Amino acid sequence: MSVTFDVAVIGATGTVGETLVQVLEERDFPLGQLHLLASEASVAQSVPFRGRNLRVKALEGFDFSQVRIAFFCAGEVVSEAFARKASAAGCAVIDLAAGQGAPLVVAEVNPDRLELLQAPLRVGNPGSIATALALALAPLRSLLDLEQVTVTACLPMSAAGRDAVRELARQTTELLNARPLEPRVFDRQVAFNMLAQVGTPDTAGHLALEKRAHLELRELLQLPLLKVAVSCIQAPVFFGDSLSVSVRSGSPVDIEAVCAALSQAPGVEWTGNDDYPTAVGDAVGQDVLYIGRIRAGLDDPCQLNLWLTLDNVRKGAALNAVQSAELLIKRLS
Amino acid sequence: MSVTFDVAVIGATGTVGETLVQVLEERDFPLGQLHLLASEASVAQSVPFRGRNLRVKALEGFDFSQVRIAFFCAGEVVSEAFARKASAAGCAVIDLAAGQGAPLVVAEVNPDRLELLQAPLRVGNPGSIATALALALAPLRSLLDLEQVTVTACLPMSAAGRDAVRELARQTTELLNARPLEPRVFDRQVAFNMLAQVGTPDTAGHLALEKRAHLELRELLQLPLLKVAVSCIQAPVFFGDSLSVSVRSGSPVDIEAVCAALSQAPGVEWTGNDDYPTAVGDAVGQDVLYIGRIRAGLDDPCQLNLWLTLDNVRKGAALNAVQSAELLIKRLS
Repeated sequence: MSVTFDVAVIGATGTVGETLVQVLEERDFPLGQLHLLASEASVAQSVPFRGRNLRVKALEGFDFSQVRIAFFCAGEVVSEAFARKASAAGCAVIDLAAGQGAPLVVAEVNPDRLELLQAPLRVGNPGSIATALALALAPLRSLLDLEQVTVTACLPMSAAGRDAVRELARQTTELLNARPLEPRVFDRQVAFNMLAQVGTPDTAGHLALEKRAHLELRELLQLPLLKVAVSCIQAPVFFGDSLSVSVRSGSPVDIEAVCAALSQAPGVEWTGNDDYPTAVGDAVGQDVLYIGRIRAGLDDPCQLNLWLTLDNVRKGAALNAVQSAELLIKRLS
Repeated sequence: MSVTFDVAVIGATGTVGETLVQVLEERDFPLGQLHLLASEASVAQSVPFRGRNLRVKALEGFDFSQVRIAFFCAGEVVSEAFARKASAAGCAVIDLAAGQGAPLVVAEVNPDRLELLQAPLRVGNPGSIATALALALAPLRSLLDLEQVTVTACLPMSAAGRDAVRELARQTTELLNARPLEPRVFDRQVAFNMLAQVGTPDTAGHLALEKRAHLELRELLQLPLLKVAVSCIQAPVFFGDSLSVSVRSGSPVDIEAVCAALSQAPGVEWTGNDDYPTAVGDAVGQDVLYIGRIRAGLDDPCQLNLWLTLDNVRKGAALNAVQSAELLIKRLS
């Protein structure tokens, strides 16, 4: 009989949690019992899994000693309150929230990180921006003398949750029907518009998402001095991240070598430069990072420019967490 | 009796030409006769002006000696074919097309450039990206040791003309009504999506718009060695440019001094950092560049980050051309 693992998904009714359950179903994950957990508000909802509906149970009071692996997809507050409890019960934790200090893993970038883990087993999942950047830049570490990464990240509504997705649809319909616009989730028109920030900036003007991506990319690439400048923009797009990236190298960039490295890199699909990928047309629903528009600076041979698109909910969150779990169970078996 | 100037607008039925006629009407421009010119296909259309409809006449065969000033808004091919003819007839030319070699002027940035002009009088109008960047950076020249400007420019449909504006509306409606999508003006879905390029790249991967902005910004700021990296993205927005900008200075940036300089700069409106501007909410229909999210690099005191929004058709094209003409007529009077 093959070994299986009982698993808990915390935040199972959110966009990421729901996708995570789908990914567990799609992949050949050696799943035993699956416990879907959420806050009281979502209890008694059900989530489809392998042809039947699984009922969502209350996180509060759940006995984590029943499961071997727990995926935390319910945000920082919930991770902070419950992940330690899960660890204390002997359960391996995959934490999708920011800032909980667990070592970050992207399966294609630093799988070796998991081998060095000490009990209690806790793995962090980076946000979608750092995941995209790490997938693109890790294969280039030996080719580039990486000094600075400057990124404009156009984020979709799904990054802000289901209410934001509905808000874009509603605002768009109102505008196309010439009805008065009533912003709700956002404080202004987001349909047919670009918002300069996602969340509220700190006193120095930086967003939490920008600071998170900065720290996470340094950690994933193991380049603690790498300069990382991220600008997060809310785009009128439902699903998928689009990143415009400029990299400064300490020496001239060999573009052919970059293309060759990226066309062989794991978790990455380069469209070739006679085409380019888009979030909606390529990345959404897929397991890999799509790359296009690879080019040197117009006046700066030490600059590399790239365009990246990624399914923010899937490879940018849920899939990556499941991949970490797949690596982890080799140690748990 | 006050002096007036007879004027021709070439490309009067396009988005920029039509706005230019509106701007002439709104401002106290000392206009005599106004001749609206276009290709044969648009002849006999009419354009509203000062309460009546002006008939569009054929550019082919027009006698430029009838006018003192000609605005060329019909693109490079038309400018190349007819601007010299206008000059030879003694007419001052304001050229809105790229690459015609006339000295570029943004009224708030380098008005002195017009004083040095020799006959025949020809003035170039930069594109909207360089105009936005020059308005923001010119007031900072004495504060920053400008080394490199890295820009992601999210461009609206109006930058690609009326057909593109209609295409976004049509694609959006099709998607919201769950009808099959039929891209026409673009080769793929642009509604609820971001396209990585605007136009076709050259063999090195650069777009004409990116190369134009690069050359124009260097010229406007009179910094021939400034490094300029522009990435142009087609956003699902009808009107208004949104630019995410990172500037590298040779020395640490004094953010307070930058804010102070920009809050006094001509043609610029800084929202303050407790708010931010958007293209739709602020810039469209306005005469100034809106600036927000002024901040230093998170890990790099020599970096300055900015968010810019501009009405690409108005200040990014038509208004700027009229402002140049207003400066020029001081010499013609």
